[in-house]
Amino acid sequence: MAGQDEQLNERREPAEDEDYGLDPRTVEAILQAADAGDAAGIDALMEPLHPADIADLLEQIGAGERAKLLSHWSRGIDGDILSELDESIREEVIEALPHEVLSEAVRELDSDDVVDIVEDLEEPQQERILGALDDSERAAVKQSLTYPDRSAGRLMQREFVTAPEDWTVGAAIDFLRGEEELPDQFYHVILVDPRWHPVGYVTLGKLLSSRRAVRLKDITEDSFRTISVTEDEGEVAYAFNQYHLISAPVVDEHDRLVGVITIDDAMIVLDEEHEEDVLRLAGVAGESSISDGVVETCRRRTPWLAVNLLTAILASWVISLFSNSIQAIVALATLMPIVASQGGNAATQTLAVAVRGLATKDLTPSNAGRIVLRELMVGGLNGLIFALVMGATTVFWFGSPLLALVMAMAMIINLLAAALGGILIPLAIERLGFDPALASGAFVTTVTDVVGFFSFLGLATLILIGH
Amino acid sequence: MAGQDEQLNERREPAEDEDYGLDPRTVEAILQAADAGDAAGIDALMEPLHPADIADLLEQIGAGERAKLLSHWSRGIDGDILSELDESIREEVIEALPHEVLSEAVRELDSDDVVDIVEDLEEPQQERILGALDDSERAAVKQSLTYPDRSAGRLMQREFVTAPEDWTVGAAIDFLRGEEELPDQFYHVILVDPRWHPVGYVTLGKLLSSRRAVRLKDITEDSFRTISVTEDEGEVAYAFNQYHLISAPVVDEHDRLVGVITIDDAMIVLDEEHEEDVLRLAGVAGESSISDGVVETCRRRTPWLAVNLLTAILASWVISLFSNSIQAIVALATLMPIVASQGGNAATQTLAVAVRGLATKDLTPSNAGRIVLRELMVGGLNGLIFALVMGATTVFWFGSPLLALVMAMAMIINLLAAALGGILIPLAIERLGFDPALASGAFVTTVTDVVGFFSFLGLATLILIGH
Repeated sequence: MAGQDEQLNERREPAEDEDYGLDPRTVEAILQAADAGDAAGIDALMEPLHPADIADLLEQIGAGERAKLLSHWSRGIDGDILSELDESIREEVIEALPHEVLSEAVRELDSDDVVDIVEDLEEPQQERILGALDDSERAAVKQSLTYPDRSAGRLMQREFVTAPEDWTVGAAIDFLRGEEELPDQFYHVILVDPRWHPVGYVTLGKLLSSRRAVRLKDITEDSFRTISVTEDEGEVAYAFNQYHLISAPVVDEHDRLVGVITIDDAMIVLDEEHEEDVLRLAGVAGESSISDGVVETCRRRTPWLAVNLLTAILASWVISLFSNSIQAIVALATLMPIVASQGGNAATQTLAVAVRGLATKDLTPSNAGRIVLRELMVGGLNGLIFALVMGATTVFWFGSPLLALVMAMAMIINLLAAALGGILIPLAIERLGFDPALASGAFVTTVTDVVGFFSFLGLATLILIGH
Repeated sequence: MAGQDEQLNERREPAEDEDYGLDPRTVEAILQAADAGDAAGIDALMEPLHPADIADLLEQIGAGERAKLLSHWSRGIDGDILSELDESIREEVIEALPHEVLSEAVRELDSDDVVDIVEDLEEPQQERILGALDDSERAAVKQSLTYPDRSAGRLMQREFVTAPEDWTVGAAIDFLRGEEELPDQFYHVILVDPRWHPVGYVTLGKLLSSRRAVRLKDITEDSFRTISVTEDEGEVAYAFNQYHLISAPVVDEHDRLVGVITIDDAMIVLDEEHEEDVLRLAGVAGESSISDGVVETCRRRTPWLAVNLLTAILASWVISLFSNSIQAIVALATLMPIVASQGGNAATQTLAVAVRGLATKDLTPSNAGRIVLRELMVGGLNGLIFALVMGATTVFWFGSPLLALVMAMAMIINLLAAALGGILIPLAIERLGFDPALASGAFVTTVTDVVGFFSFLGLATLILIGH
């Protein structure tokens, strides 16, 4: 069991180095200050915190503590904190904000951050926020909201720097030095042709290190790729991760430049996509959050438990077909969950590898056949190993070589079924155009439960009862 | 079942937009050209591909196809492709490369990329690569290898741009314009004090848009944070994601600048950490890869299946305690897996949310108590729902109200146990200093299997057999 030893040895470094994120002692001190109504204490403790950490703090404490803290905190919610807040409590916080504070908070933000806040809100709150913006900003946000949910158009920012493709380094530097209003954060100058099509980009580092006479088009980056405004945000995150992009121009259906996506936004999307995969595989629906309440949590979990109940009833119906055999040999009831359980676990292993492979595009039509074959061989090998182990255990436990034979055969059959189910079900779901992570435990373990019980009890009836 | 309808409606966009990554038709055409020994065809098809896509191609095809393709491909492996390759086939590819090709490939790379390649190799291959470097580069790589595995020191690059903290914008621009050797990619100028401590950084955009007389220390970014060279890479990825960093200076134990980590490296780490979480939760050990062979795959999975077998035998021993009851009422054998299965699924849901919450530091000592309480309430509510459903089903199926009562009570008990196990086990594992994702299915479902079988069969023995 080398693999396991390895894992267990991977103890984390002592806490000393782990100095990012919120310190629980700080949280406790802040809650105590809030409880005591000590406004000066709250301000002193909150002052050094990053907006992302303040948002985490507000998410981690209870609703009552939150209200008390916010009422005593003099600085109050600003735009940065608002964009970091989880949507599960964002509505509650916005509701409590006085109109002028809310207006000031959203005016500070870039249009993509406002879109990110507005798209999750209910109608009346959307209107409140849109009303706080000035006309041009409101128009930009409304334009972004016309793009599909989770598209590049929602993700992009509209602040970027362009230069005509025939400019020289000198002209670009002079232009930048003379420009009054540049975006807060930009890393590239995008070259555009006269029809506003992006044709390449130059990093600011390359610009600064090149001679004035050099033409911009001669120092563009190889990594240049444009993104369609309707592209799914998951694909955008994939492209950034696969091609190590730092920023990428977004184009409309006529290939005209409309915005820019930067890697920090892509990283957030990648993180959200992963969260969705982990939760879906475990049978949790939608954008679950640690700060969801009981009802919301049930809404995300109970439906999949209902699906699982149906599949469990199916498996138990299979068992009921063999009631007479179980009555004759009660050891069958004792042993049958072992076959089902090993199958379920092996299938979950294969499923996780398959879903991950599909997400990273490492499992493709080109190698699917080879991977299915590998999984079958792994299933067969594990089947043999655990057939031997459980065969021996069964002889030792129940003293019946024939029962051991039944156990061994059923184990091999079910681990082969687990291998096939674990890989073919996510492949089929992907082919149908759905997210393969929806092939959560429920579907795949139905196969291993049904095959496990049927093969074990069926073989027992044939071999043991037939005798 | 609103949650589910939502999920099933989330059909992906049609394939039209999905234009990143390898096209399976391209892969097929390349394989055909390789099969026909058509070197010109291979070159034409491979020419437009990004090194990351070429690496994926090599990973997806079989070993025989790989050898044939590489023997006919005139351009051949370069440093960029080598760093993109998965370690599972990197050794094979390096082994096959002629010495001069390998030397040229590694000489092109930055020191952090060479470290990334060398750290995974066996001794003789390490020597081959180190031998291909020139002296200063070899010293830099060897220095990086003295830092712990998976530390910031392994991840950082040694190419960066600094300026004294008292410089003006004009001085910095003149310096950059005059410098011969600047890094390929850089986004910030790091300000250092005379003792080489980083004290802030200025983005190139801010530099270009500021007047020459402005002092650099007056236009530094608020987001400035330094990273310790021994910091765990997972913490580094967390800091980049939490604080939206683009790059961060790395300092040694005396707080002196030794390197820089950029967001693209942090994004790769974030992706790897997620992969590890998904696979560990499913009981797959270590850095599993889609291109692993059968033996390697078994090595990563069989140990956890062995652990699961032990827990399954424990559960079946619990069943064996009630053999007489099952002999008396064989319906118990039919119904008992339903209780265990619902518990296992509910526990997996809670576990996934808990592991994710710990990874994102959203589940902390400050709110653990509240979350445990929420999980208990969700477990109780689901227990009530499925107790009613299965109670009714049992009456309908077996016509026994008392059996239905046993089923309902066992369901509530097991869903409460699932809630507690699903949250307390990962919290305990984290507290002990291990990765909570190690609380894979095996541990948690042991609880729900044992509690499920014991409560159902125990209550049946008390209530039904006692009668």
